[in-house]
Amino acid sequence: MSILIFITGGTFDKEYNEITGQLYFKDTHMQELLNKGRNRVPVNIKTLMMIDSLEMTDADRKEIVGHCAACAENRIVVTHGTDTMEITAQELGKAALNKTIVLTGAMVPYKFGSSDGLFNLGSALAFVQSLPAGVYVAMNGRYFDWHNVRKNKASGIFEEVA
Amino acid sequence: MSILIFITGGTFDKEYNEITGQLYFKDTHMQELLNKGRNRVPVNIKTLMMIDSLEMTDADRKEIVGHCAACAENRIVVTHGTDTMEITAQELGKAALNKTIVLTGAMVPYKFGSSDGLFNLGSALAFVQSLPAGVYVAMNGRYFDWHNVRKNKASGIFEEVA
Amino acid sequence: MSILIFITGGTFDKEYNEITGQLYFKDTHMQELLNKGRNRVPVNIKTLMMIDSLEMTDADRKEIVGHCAACAENRIVVTHGTDTMEITAQELGKAALNKTIVLTGAMVPYKFGSSDGLFNLGSALAFVQSLPAGVYVAMNGRYFDWHNVRKNKASGIFEEVA
Amino acid sequence: MSILIFITGGTFDKEYNEITGQLYFKDTHMQELLNKGRNRVPVNIKTLMMIDSLEMTDADRKEIVGHCAACAENRIVVTHGTDTMEITAQELGKAALNKTIVLTGAMVPYKFGSSDGLFNLGSALAFVQSLPAGVYVAMNGRYFDWHNVRKNKASGIFEEVA
Repeated sequence: MSILIFITGGTFDKEYNEITGQLYFKDTHMQELLNKGRNRVPVNIKTLMMIDSLEMTDADRKEIVGHCAACAENRIVVTHGTDTMEITAQELGKAALNKTIVLTGAMVPYKFGSSDGLFNLGSALAFVQSLPAGVYVAMNGRYFDWHNVRKNKASGIFEEVA
Repeated sequence: MSILIFITGGTFDKEYNEITGQLYFKDTHMQELLNKGRNRVPVNIKTLMMIDSLEMTDADRKEIVGHCAACAENRIVVTHGTDTMEITAQELGKAALNKTIVLTGAMVPYKFGSSDGLFNLGSALAFVQSLPAGVYVAMNGRYFDWHNVRKNKASGIFEEVA
Repeated sequence: MSILIFITGGTFDKEYNEITGQLYFKDTHMQELLNKGRNRVPVNIKTLMMIDSLEMTDADRKEIVGHCAACAENRIVVTHGTDTMEITAQELGKAALNKTIVLTGAMVPYKFGSSDGLFNLGSALAFVQSLPAGVYVAMNGRYFDWHNVRKNKASGIFEEVA
Repeated sequence: MSILIFITGGTFDKEYNEITGQLYFKDTHMQELLNKGRNRVPVNIKTLMMIDSLEMTDADRKEIVGHCAACAENRIVVTHGTDTMEITAQELGKAALNKTIVLTGAMVPYKFGSSDGLFNLGSALAFVQSLPAGVYVAMNGRYFDWHNVRKNKASGIFEEVA
């Protein structure tokens, strides 16, 4: 069965508006990244929202959990802003869906040359195929269980809580 | 314990010589890729050789197997040219080392903007952390057991033999 | 004699702070661009300021004019934010320095893959070598006299006033 | 009147074939470069040939000269492989066409991230607008008269003969 990729926005998909000089969201670049990686894993891509994770509400998280619960797939990647990725991971973890769900994101927009997005996507797609049911954050080449992960706001690096 | 990354060359690390117009090898770009991916998995990088895999000899493969057997690490990534990756995987598989060994590579040199190298490296590092002992090829987002993988020469895509 | 390149900041030199998600200035990328262009025109690079041109004050412009007047070189390139480039061009034009001065900039930061900066720099360096004394804006492949240029704020394109 | 851009191939337009690992020609990337530079100079692009300049024959050069003579435009940019650019410049120079003709190229293919192509194109388009009738080579930020230029084969840099 295909892997389902839910898009929620985050730095991953931000673009630079050359008229205003602001970062903004247009469409996801997921298919472009998968093409660049010559990906051959069957995937379905569904955009749930395109937002900065600092603006993600409880209702947004309920929506994400609901979609993860309702879909037929039991291997799911969720792209997400890094600032509150741990909170969404906790909501998904508490839902105990008996699926393998991997959240990932990027520190630098894909459209900027120096992005970590392609690396993180490669690792997220690998972890979601090889890890047992559970909710994980895949960042910086590592994976973390949902109940033991946080973003270090000073360094931008994901780490265990305990 | 750290993951050991053995470098053997391949398209991954090829560069363009602007004087001669030829592709050639200088140094590996592994650390540059890991930096771009903001990798935080502890790794050791060792360059065994820098060659096109079409020129890899039986002696070269013996050397690779020997290093995989002799090292202390039991999780190993081997970067390799794609053309004969399946042969080296078979040699490593037959050696039955009781380690998790993942071979990966790229269809386009990392230094060319359109490379799949960062995606493949992200997936290889993830698979090597999460798969049981065995020898695998990680390409195109997928992983293959060493005894059931080949590169489709016409399409450049890795696939099962049977 | 060398061409003098004065750096004042602008989108050209903006970078992405991956911790805060904000654009900011660190150092100029001028040498990096010149290296990429394999530039062999003798140049001197001097950073006068590193600011967004929307924040450029009358005092800043006086400083730029003063440096252009005082320097020994009579061929000068000034990198500048695009939003108020026309105003600085007018100040330089009114100063009637009897030098060839070319202002240029970029719509997208150099560090983002899609930047027009390298193209604009190539054209600015060419115009400064080949145009007679005067003050010009070089953007979008074109050059404009200082008294007849404005940035179209809606399209981001430079055009004649009349 | 528009500037005419004649495409003849050269490193500029080479691509990497990821199946064979060879460099080859497909289509010109000229429009892509002009878009990246946000070019607003009216241009017409005509592909005359797509060849490595080491393989350019006398007949090919006659064809280039013929097209430069026959076209209505009197400002022409010719993209060209660097290895024999000086020879084509000489043929064009001897033809004494009373037009401004600028030959340019690249040391690294545009599709590889590190290309000088965008810089050279920016400078060529600027020189062709601002130099008097004559035949020039625009490389490395500089311009050379057709009768006094050669590529230094060891360094890859263009220089005066005398």
